[in-house]
Parts: sequence; structure tokens; C-alpha cells
Amino acid sequence: MKLNEQYRTLEKSYLFSDIAHRVSEFQKANPGVDVIRMGIGDVTRPLGEKIVGEMVAGTKEQGKAESFHGYGPEQGYEFLREAVRGYYRSYGVELHPDEIFISDGAKSDVGNILDLFDRENTVLIPDPVYPVYRDTNYMDGRRIVYLEANKENGFLPMPVSGQQADLIYLCSPNNPTGAVYSREQLTKWVEYALEQDAVILFDAAYESFICDENLPRSIFEIEGARRCAIEFCSLSKTAGFTGTRCGYTVVPDDLVRNGLSLREMWLRRQTTKFNGVSYPVQKAAAAVFTPEGQAQCRENLAVYRENAQIMSQALQEMGIWFVGGSNSPYLWLECPNGMNSWEFFDDLLHRAHVVGTPGSGFGKNGEGFFRLTAFGTVENTREAMARMRKLYCK
Amino acid sequence: MKLNEQYRTLEKSYLFSDIAHRVSEFQKANPGVDVIRMGIGDVTRPLGEKIVGEMVAGTKEQGKAESFHGYGPEQGYEFLREAVRGYYRSYGVELHPDEIFISDGAKSDVGNILDLFDRENTVLIPDPVYPVYRDTNYMDGRRIVYLEANKENGFLPMPVSGQQADLIYLCSPNNPTGAVYSREQLTKWVEYALEQDAVILFDAAYESFICDENLPRSIFEIEGARRCAIEFCSLSKTAGFTGTRCGYTVVPDDLVRNGLSLREMWLRRQTTKFNGVSYPVQKAAAAVFTPEGQAQCRENLAVYRENAQIMSQALQEMGIWFVGGSNSPYLWLECPNGMNSWEFFDDLLHRAHVVGTPGSGFGKNGEGFFRLTAFGTVENTREAMARMRKLYCK
Repeated sequence: MKLNEQYRTLEKSYLFSDIAHRVSEFQKANPGVDVIRMGIGDVTRPLGEKIVGEMVAGTKEQGKAESFHGYGPEQGYEFLREAVRGYYRSYGVELHPDEIFISDGAKSDVGNILDLFDRENTVLIPDPVYPVYRDTNYMDGRRIVYLEANKENGFLPMPVSGQQADLIYLCSPNNPTGAVYSREQLTKWVEYALEQDAVILFDAAYESFICDENLPRSIFEIEGARRCAIEFCSLSKTAGFTGTRCGYTVVPDDLVRNGLSLREMWLRRQTTKFNGVSYPVQKAAAAVFTPEGQAQCRENLAVYRENAQIMSQALQEMGIWFVGGSNSPYLWLECPNGMNSWEFFDDLLHRAHVVGTPGSGFGKNGEGFFRLTAFGTVENTREAMARMRKLYCK
Repeated sequence: MKLNEQYRTLEKSYLFSDIAHRVSEFQKANPGVDVIRMGIGDVTRPLGEKIVGEMVAGTKEQGKAESFHGYGPEQGYEFLREAVRGYYRSYGVELHPDEIFISDGAKSDVGNILDLFDRENTVLIPDPVYPVYRDTNYMDGRRIVYLEANKENGFLPMPVSGQQADLIYLCSPNNPTGAVYSREQLTKWVEYALEQDAVILFDAAYESFICDENLPRSIFEIEGARRCAIEFCSLSKTAGFTGTRCGYTVVPDDLVRNGLSLREMWLRRQTTKFNGVSYPVQKAAAAVFTPEGQAQCRENLAVYRENAQIMSQALQEMGIWFVGGSNSPYLWLECPNGMNSWEFFDDLLHRAHVVGTPGSGFGKNGEGFFRLTAFGTVENTREAMARMRKLYCK
């Protein structure tokens, strides 16, 4: 019996366990010190009342024979796919409901979509990056070419002329850097993908943080993207669904290669290896897209945005170079005083009692950089920035 | 860009859409006729009160900052893994909580587990069979060898001496046949797997229908299975979770091949491509394993069991050969009067107004056989059998 030998050499990711370990050591040595956590990309604000109400109603339906829902459509209930379609329409993207696939979250779909592609493909992945793109392709043994993201290009790498590509990962607003591609930049990526006959796997998990109307929220706002892109989106950050679990993936009908429709392939994959999302969760997700649900989500997003603004202003005052923070819950900063990522992590923890994420954990180009997240409370965010100002002003 | 070309030649499964089409044509031509559906393997009875109550409580927790749950452990919350562990312990199987993985259902895990195995493996799959085993391996291009299940072996195929094997699918109680392996038979399978260095993928989705204490509910009741088996289980049929979605997979620590722990590989797979099951769903699932939850599940199971008994008795009286029906919600019968599967489907629909599933839809050995399910109401089940008795008594 042969195992998938790729797992043997897959690098273990110790990033967040290393962080947890160092923080817990510090707290043991310094009991009573108030540590502010700005490291993890998880939301803190609860689900909106409308969303909870609909999920409770959906759950109660499951308790009565006359309203009980058994197996649902693997692709998701039409009521939810129509709601997602309406959401896209609100910023000018027209989709057919059959192009929308409901899932338990973007992470599952980003991983599972690779079932559709041969292993003999070249994959472009930005560095630094959300580790799932790299690890899932490594598991399949695909050739990975990194897109160099750095201070010079504002952590928004562009196509390199002459570089062959089959699959291209883009994430905008980006995790971990918070950088956002402009319409012109995404247009160049779409042109390049079409020229290469490549498919863009576009991670739009943070689209709801975009306020600037000139910035695209979906790759499908770009001419030609329907012929070369798949988009992954999530209610995790939009509506606080990190623990409730619901996302959606758009595979356009126009995405065809060698006579095979990728939408039909994904439908076949999902009907074979997935049984749909929990009915009460789909009810909750549909509530997100009602006017009341949207208003409640906006309230939560406004808090995270305020945090991001407080942080941006503080970093500017400190004279620290950074990207992100506007149109994104992440700030990606250059470590002050020439420190490397882990040196700054320790310095920040020991002197300011603030926890962030060392950029080097996201790839080699992350060395010397650092991620802070805007998902805490406004009070803690202000306090953390006050502490940093005392230490790192140029 | 190269797609996974296996999808091009993957047979489309039209079984249930063909059935739906024929039924709807019949109903159009015969309005007002009362058609009884015994075709689909979906439950009809609602979730127990205790289960609904806990899910509602979990949902309300998501609406308050102080009780909000964000990202949970990918493998599932400890409270649920401990509950599953206690359930296994109740019939004598000892597991470590780290060996239990909570998922959104057995179908996902049965499909995704293949990520751990190389494509160069020989896979044994029973015929007839739940189509997911076949299709998921076909998608990966693995070599499939069918295990011949037939009237002679009671639709319980046994190892064939000299047959090389790497992966072996067993489902007991079986879908679609309802046949259940004895302890002696499973012992032979475990011995064979150990001898072949193969891994048994054991689908125990229907274990809760087993009443006979001599029959094994888990492959891990068999000596040696911890070194050669993975077990998939589900709350779909046990507790009516087909639309609420929760299952669990057991990968024992002793399952090691070439120095790689399959439990560690699966953990790595799930932490990379999955983000855990919805927190309120896990609360509901944990309620299933409380004494109150178990009592409520038993009430529902008792109805399905009564149906299966009514059907078994009727088929016996009619002199029709069948397996299943005891310790299983499925009955697998030989079509009367030498009809083939679709001929009997049409005859049963047109003359008795009863819908079942043609056995030929599950594989070549299913031809001439037919599946009936016990998931309807007692009243409908009695009525359907009365109609059949009038037509098919020998």
C-alpha cells in the first residue's frame, strides 16, 4: 500500500503554536501583566440578532416533522444562492445561481478545488502568503513558483513577463499583508491569465472591508475574468461566521478548458464528496443578506474598521512603513529599528505586552515584517497603540 | 493548463433523477393517485427535543460577545469527541479522543480520506455499492477491483485468496443491500487486510440499526483492526442529521505504514483543508449522546425498525427472496416473476403506486434486484405492503 509520500516532507506549520508558547511563557513569568492580542485573524464580535433569530428558527424547524429538512442540495439551497446572487448584483456583478456553490467555508473549497486540476501544472503563489495555498499544492506535488511580494511593489506582485503559469493564487484584500489590488492591476492579471490559458483562484474572503468604491470587491468586476477565474468568499469576516461556518464559491459558466466546464466538474466533485451545508446554518447565512442582517454586519465591520484606522494613524505617527489598514482588517508593517520578525515579536511582547504575528511565518519575503489585526476591541486597540508609541517613535 | 482528465470519462449518475422523472410522468398521467415513496435513503422523523434545545442554546451563544465561539479546533471540540468516545465505550470499544475526528458528515470524509493515499493502489469495492466509493477512486484514477456480492454469498462478499489489495471498502450494515457482516466474517477481512498490508475503509453509517448483540457495530470490535482500519460514522441515520450535518471518523494511532501515522496525516489534511464543524451543530451532536438524546433517537429508530419488520414479514409471506430488514433500514429483494430491476420499478409504480430503487443502479450485480427503505411512516409502510401482497404473492 502506497501512501501519499508528499505528506512525509510537508513542512509542519508551528507559527501559531510557537506564538502561543512564547506568550504563555511570558505570562507565567509576568503574572498580572495585561497582554493585548493582535495576532490571530479571528473575529470577536457576535452574530447579529437577525442572523441568530433565523438560525434558531431553522433549528426549530428541524424539530418538527412537518418542517423537517433532510438531505438538501449539495450546491446549497436556492434561497441562499439567490441571496448571494443579489449581494453580487449590489456591486454590479451578474451571476447565474448555478454558478454559486454554498460551502462550509472558503478554506474547504480553496483546498478541495484542486481535485479538478492535474498534478502536472505550474502554480503561482505570492510570498508572503496564507499557508493553505502552498500546503495544499505541496500535498499534490505540484510545481510552485513564488510571486515576489515586497516593499518595492507594495506587497502586490504583478505578472512577470515570460513566466509560464497554469494556476494563479491571488488574495485581495490580502492575508497577511492587507494590500488591495486596484482595478488596473487585476485587469493585468486577467489579461495574463487569459494569455497563459491559466486559471486564477481568487480569494475574496476580506471583500467586505473594502470601502473605496474604486477598488474591485470581486474578480468578476474585471472584463474577461469569467473566462479565467474562480472566486472564493466567506461569511467568516463579513458576518462573524468563523465558528458558525459558511462560505461560497463562484465558478462561472464561461470557464471551460479543453471542452470541460469547470462549473460542471465542481458540481460533480461536490455532489460526490460533499453533502451540503447544515440547513439552519444556510438560514443564518441567508439572513446576512437581508437589509436588517446587512445593517447588523456593518455595525460590526465599523468597529474593526475603526480599529484599523486607529492603528494606521499610530503607525504613521511612529514613522513606521506599512501597507493595509484601509479596506482591510490587517496591517503589515516593517519591523522598527532593523529588527527581524521574531526579534520584534519578542520586543513587542516583553516591552509593550502586545502580541502580533511575525511576518517570516508567511514566507521568506515576510522576514523583517509583522502583521497586526484589527479584530480586537477599540479600547484595547487604543491602549496597544499608546504603548507602541512610547517605544517606537522615530 | 491540465485538468483532471478522469472527470471527462466519469459516468454520470442519473439513478435518482431517472426515478424522479418516471415518478413525475406517472403522477402527471394519473393525478390523485396516492404514490408511496420507499426509494430515497433519507430519514423523515425530526430531531429530538433535547438535540434541538442544545442547538438553539449554542446558536444563542453565538449572538453574545461573552459566549461567542470563533474558529474552533479543526478536529472538533473536545466535548463532542469525548461524547463519541463514550458512545464507543458503551459497546466495548476504547478510543483515544485524538483518534476521533468530527466532520460535516461521512460522505465528505469517505471522499477526502483518499488524499492520504497514492494513486498507484488497488482498491477493492463491493458490487453493488454506494456509488461514492467507486466515483471518488475513479476521479483519482485508481485501479478498482470489484468484490462480487450476490445471492449466493448473501450479498456479503469475502476475501478472495490470491487477490492483491491496498484499499478495501466495507459497509456494514450495507447500503444498498442491508446485509450485515458477522463477527467471524469481519475477522476474516481484518486478517486478510493485515496479510495484504491493506487499509480497510469501514463505513459504519448504519451501525445504530444493529439490535443483535452478536453483530459487530464497529470494525474496532475485531482484534487487529486498529492496525488496518479507518471507520466512518454519521449522525444522519442515527439521529436524523441528514440535513443538520455531522459525522465522525476514527483513525487509530496504531495505523502506521512505512513510518507514517495515518492519524497524523489525516490531522494535517483536516487542519489544512477544513475549518471544523459549526459550533451549534457540534452542541446538537453532543446532545445526541446524552441519555435524554439517546432515548429520543431510540424512539425514532424504533419506528424505522417497525417498518423494516413489517416489510420483512410481507416479503416472506409473498415468497420473495431478500436480505436486510433486520439490523438495517434497507431491504434488498429479488424482483418477482423474473423481472429486471427497471421492469419491476415500472410494474411496482404503475400497479402498486409504490416507488423503490432499481438495484441495477448500484452496479452490475444489482440487476434483477431492488431496494426498499424503511424511512417512511408506519401507516404508509403497511399500505405499501398490502398493495404489494395483492400483486406479488407466489
